Amino acid sequence: MAEIGPSLMCSDLGALREDINILHEGNVDFFHFDIMDGHFVPNYTMGTDMIKSVRYDTNLPFDAHLMIEYPERYIDTFVECGCDMISVHEEATPHLHRTLQHMKSTGVQTGLALNPSTSLNSLEYVGDIVDYVVIMTVNPGFAGQTFISSTLNKIDNLKHFINSNNLQIKIQVDGNISYDTIPEVMKKGANMLVCGTSCLFRQPKGLQQAAADLRQFTDRMKVKQ
Amino acid sequence: MAEIGPSLMCSDLGALREDINILHEGNVDFFHFDIMDGHFVPNYTMGTDMIKSVRYDTNLPFDAHLMIEYPERYIDTFVECGCDMISVHEEATPHLHRTLQHMKSTGVQTGLALNPSTSLNSLEYVGDIVDYVVIMTVNPGFAGQTFISSTLNKIDNLKHFINSNNLQIKIQVDGNISYDTIPEVMKKGANMLVCGTSCLFRQPKGLQQAAADLRQFTDRMKVKQ
Amino acid sequence: MAEIGPSLMCSDLGALREDINILHEGNVDFFHFDIMDGHFVPNYTMGTDMIKSVRYDTNLPFDAHLMIEYPERYIDTFVECGCDMISVHEEATPHLHRTLQHMKSTGVQTGLALNPSTSLNSLEYVGDIVDYVVIMTVNPGFAGQTFISSTLNKIDNLKHFINSNNLQIKIQVDGNISYDTIPEVMKKGANMLVCGTSCLFRQPKGLQQAAADLRQFTDRMKVKQ
Amino acid sequence: MAEIGPSLMCSDLGALREDINILHEGNVDFFHFDIMDGHFVPNYTMGTDMIKSVRYDTNLPFDAHLMIEYPERYIDTFVECGCDMISVHEEATPHLHRTLQHMKSTGVQTGLALNPSTSLNSLEYVGDIVDYVVIMTVNPGFAGQTFISSTLNKIDNLKHFINSNNLQIKIQVDGNISYDTIPEVMKKGANMLVCGTSCLFRQPKGLQQAAADLRQFTDRMKVKQ
Amino acid sequence: MAEIGPSLMCSDLGALREDINILHEGNVDFFHFDIMDGHFVPNYTMGTDMIKSVRYDTNLPFDAHLMIEYPERYIDTFVECGCDMISVHEEATPHLHRTLQHMKSTGVQTGLALNPSTSLNSLEYVGDIVDYVVIMTVNPGFAGQTFISSTLNKIDNLKHFINSNNLQIKIQVDGNISYDTIPEVMKKGANMLVCGTSCLFRQPKGLQQAAADLRQFTDRMKVKQ
Amino acid sequence: MAEIGPSLMCSDLGALREDINILHEGNVDFFHFDIMDGHFVPNYTMGTDMIKSVRYDTNLPFDAHLMIEYPERYIDTFVECGCDMISVHEEATPHLHRTLQHMKSTGVQTGLALNPSTSLNSLEYVGDIVDYVVIMTVNPGFAGQTFISSTLNKIDNLKHFINSNNLQIKIQVDGNISYDTIPEVMKKGANMLVCGTSCLFRQPKGLQQAAADLRQFTDRMKVKQ
Repeated sequence: MAEIGPSLMCSDLGALREDINILHEGNVDFFHFDIMDGHFVPNYTMGTDMIKSVRYDTNLPFDAHLMIEYPERYIDTFVECGCDMISVHEEATPHLHRTLQHMKSTGVQTGLALNPSTSLNSLEYVGDIVDYVVIMTVNPGFAGQTFISSTLNKIDNLKHFINSNNLQIKIQVDGNISYDTIPEVMKKGANMLVCGTSCLFRQPKGLQQAAADLRQFTDRMKVKQ
Repeated sequence: MAEIGPSLMCSDLGALREDINILHEGNVDFFHFDIMDGHFVPNYTMGTDMIKSVRYDTNLPFDAHLMIEYPERYIDTFVECGCDMISVHEEATPHLHRTLQHMKSTGVQTGLALNPSTSLNSLEYVGDIVDYVVIMTVNPGFAGQTFISSTLNKIDNLKHFINSNNLQIKIQVDGNISYDTIPEVMKKGANMLVCGTSCLFRQPKGLQQAAADLRQFTDRMKVKQ
Repeated sequence: MAEIGPSLMCSDLGALREDINILHEGNVDFFHFDIMDGHFVPNYTMGTDMIKSVRYDTNLPFDAHLMIEYPERYIDTFVECGCDMISVHEEATPHLHRTLQHMKSTGVQTGLALNPSTSLNSLEYVGDIVDYVVIMTVNPGFAGQTFISSTLNKIDNLKHFINSNNLQIKIQVDGNISYDTIPEVMKKGANMLVCGTSCLFRQPKGLQQAAADLRQFTDRMKVKQ
Repeated sequence: MAEIGPSLMCSDLGALREDINILHEGNVDFFHFDIMDGHFVPNYTMGTDMIKSVRYDTNLPFDAHLMIEYPERYIDTFVECGCDMISVHEEATPHLHRTLQHMKSTGVQTGLALNPSTSLNSLEYVGDIVDYVVIMTVNPGFAGQTFISSTLNKIDNLKHFINSNNLQIKIQVDGNISYDTIPEVMKKGANMLVCGTSCLFRQPKGLQQAAADLRQFTDRMKVKQ
Repeated sequence: MAEIGPSLMCSDLGALREDINILHEGNVDFFHFDIMDGHFVPNYTMGTDMIKSVRYDTNLPFDAHLMIEYPERYIDTFVECGCDMISVHEEATPHLHRTLQHMKSTGVQTGLALNPSTSLNSLEYVGDIVDYVVIMTVNPGFAGQTFISSTLNKIDNLKHFINSNNLQIKIQVDGNISYDTIPEVMKKGANMLVCGTSCLFRQPKGLQQAAADLRQFTDRMKVKQ
Repeated sequence: MAEIGPSLMCSDLGALREDINILHEGNVDFFHFDIMDGHFVPNYTMGTDMIKSVRYDTNLPFDAHLMIEYPERYIDTFVECGCDMISVHEEATPHLHRTLQHMKSTGVQTGLALNPSTSLNSLEYVGDIVDYVVIMTVNPGFAGQTFISSTLNKIDNLKHFINSNNLQIKIQVDGNISYDTIPEVMKKGANMLVCGTSCLFRQPKGLQQAAADLRQFTDRMKVKQ
């Protein structure tokens, strides 16, 4: 069993509330917002006004994935607009501990996101303040990419690190999460799945059915403990 | 008479398509999208996926106001997702002519946006490739600000520059455009009004009535020729 | 008559309080702190802790000259540590109006600093919120430079602009202000003199005598009205 | 009559010395080196090692056009490798006066380069230390562009500024300088022509003949005084 | 036994020389200057003029902790104003080896500073040119923070690395060093203590007594060998 | 036996084609072009026009070493001008996997360059897409430096990593490669030698003889397998 977090960037952004309602009914676990700045990643997506617009339409956690440079500048902004979980990229700031520590102090679930090439080294000294690690299974900022297989080893190594240090850190995976890749990542230890067009949105069967199928599929899978 | 362009950042972003439909019926002239990068301005708003999501819901022009650093990097991106008008900030690039020239070559209406403190000097050498100038009447990137009165002089000076050079440049105003400020800016020569919460969105009378009232009000006003 | 503002960067920084006491007794008008960031100018000098350390040793105004990039990030910091006057460089931010407006809103005297090559153009649209303009008469960030004579014209042009617009803006000059240059700059309209080693500090006659002489000298000169 | 400066970026870079010899014999007036940094302009070209490699093959002046950010960092480098003339872009540094002043102090001819959209404003306070102004007649960093006609007005305005201030500043033009555009720019006052593939290099008649023809053509034209 | 280095940023900056005299008499081992640039850390503190002002008041080593971006630009500056020890942050430059190598070549003690989240990896290839490592036990740039306990492991790992490679590297700790934390860090191997308001400055007993007490306390403790 | 790649930056840049012909005849294995941007390294060298100028003078592979910030922006440019091998610096981009993956997709040999202080950590997750690793044996961007001996360990560690993971990655060494250092680096596993003035160019015996001698010398040496 793993948590399902729809990536709302992939929803129908002309009728976001409707999609959120369907997904809420479909028992997803959190909503994932991709924030891009055109610098850290070459794209723009959504912002705080959109998050506020739908904040009262569901009580599920809102998860902001900040694909932005120097995220320390905007933690408070995303806390204030209603996020319950925030992740920042190690590659985006020289002050990783300070940023995570501040996130933690605001009460949000504190996430550390890692690009595909980034090692797990920094976890050695911030592992105690991180609630979840985001293993990017594609490179951030682009749609329609292929799952990067070397990230499976990284999930494996991360799981091992967590266990051997007796930590309570969740493993979120983000990027081309599909019926093909879910079994593999869960087998390695992933327990939070960010789901986009590979398995949830823009399916012929419609969003409601897609959510139900995905729920059933992942509930039957076992995460490596 | 002036063109009305609702600033969709102020709409209900959980039901964007609905608002667009109401505004389309209310005879607005174009739709205005504020794109922010967290660098040029300290905020994030919307992006290309959202623009694509509603591109086929109206045939009115889409106007992207790029409040981003080095906008030359993203002109093609915003053209491809369906924008008909794009404006870039003079303060955001050392290569203003190159950027405007490229915009022009793509066929979009080419806009030059000026911060409140920015003079009209550069127009001397790019006036021939600009279709509209955006006079920021508040500082970009923040909501709920007061109209900056010194920008009225700038509209006046711009109108004079346009007339004395026999140019066909429209004057867009953006920032706290309300029933109080519309007469003033139109008297000086503004003929494109970006309208947000000061006169259109989040009014007690509802969006439909607000749009109708605004249409009637501006249709009766005369722009300085 | 002009206001005298000792540039404390030139004082004995091992005994700053002593120098401040002497200068306070010598009837100077304000204290000038040069803040450098190693980016906008290639040097480091002093900071908020130093300002706080001596804030209660005199009730004269503290003037912070921010030679830093993106000064908008630190206005509140310098207000909070006790500055009464702050100046920022036009060349250091694309958001000049926003920065000055915010400074004004905090209650400090709001200064606009201009590098030797910078024209007076932007004053057209921010003149109404500026309390003083700093005409740099040498390039900022370096000691021991020669007075740049083309800045005399700039003072002249500025004085003319102020008069013809009925504004109440003071003219501060900063850089190699000496017994040679004071008559020239005051004749053009300068009425705030930032004084360093060219006429005040590190003189054989000692700081007390130097302050007395300078006071007497400038009190006898007339500023152009 | 105007000075001719071949743009060596357009020569056969596999046999640069040969081209320099032909051009030296063809009585050109200086050699022009375009230095690009992939930041100010999106390209890379040549550097100091190349300049040194051919420095002793001719005694004609070497002119380095620095299309780089913060050129103040590299003035000494280009002086030391043998340049006699250096131009920097106003858009590339907030410290224009300091940069030009330093260039002047090294003894090189001091050039100020202006992008097509850049006004002549800054000349007001640096005109006394500039030896030549480079009017970019295309946008820098790209080959094969069309001559921008609005720059003719700028040359005109510059010539007027020079005359009315009794200055000795040369006017260099750079970008698509051809048999079509030479008469126009010289009529306006340009007296230094940077020549590339539009009239000198890669002509069917060969470099020697092209140089001879160009020399004859420009020697017959009159520069506006 | 460990070396004591008062952090002068915490002294009375209005009477710096006095504090230095007291501390010199109190047998501290070096003086620590925190240099901040408002970019790498969000603060400004002191600079070269201040260091020069007190350089001749003591013959103890001056230690500059450069919390600045691209410190390679300013090594010579801090050597020339009289520093004997300089530390730079690994996170602040992509050219760590080059920077340390240059520091070493000037004759100063060469320090490598590590943010709390930074691993010890880079030491593998620069360990042979480093004289001391600064383990930041709080995040740099902010006062009054809590000691970060995960840094104790880092000191331990560093000590182990030093011993197993037979290196002569000192371990400096910086951040909330107090009577509570000194025993812990020394037990792990720290032998240079940067001391601020947690145990030395702004104590009710006065600076002289505080220095004496601290000296006695640390002299009795044993550093792990 | 190792591949020899002359660093053309060290050739006679006034007669590049001639040197290439001599080296081609001398049986070198590839040609190495150093591209510098004045940002990542403090120098400028050569660019795409030069590469194009000599692309048809030899069919040997062209190897571009991009010492530039954010190399992802220019991969296509260097592929299009005829490069067969490209290396980028890990320290120059936060998106290492994305950059290497894109390089790989264009068909060029994909190189990862590491500064002397950079560890081998990132190889763990990009080792499967890298064709060669460039171990910088001096700091990039400067000529005439001493070989850094700690890089021998890095070559050793890299060879061990390659073998234990059954990868097919070549080891290129760059920086002061001479008759003294070649045996050492080859003994550790280096099999691609970038050769400049230390053993090939500017030798009294001339380029032809130097190439022949070097060929013979390296052909006799054995690379560690």
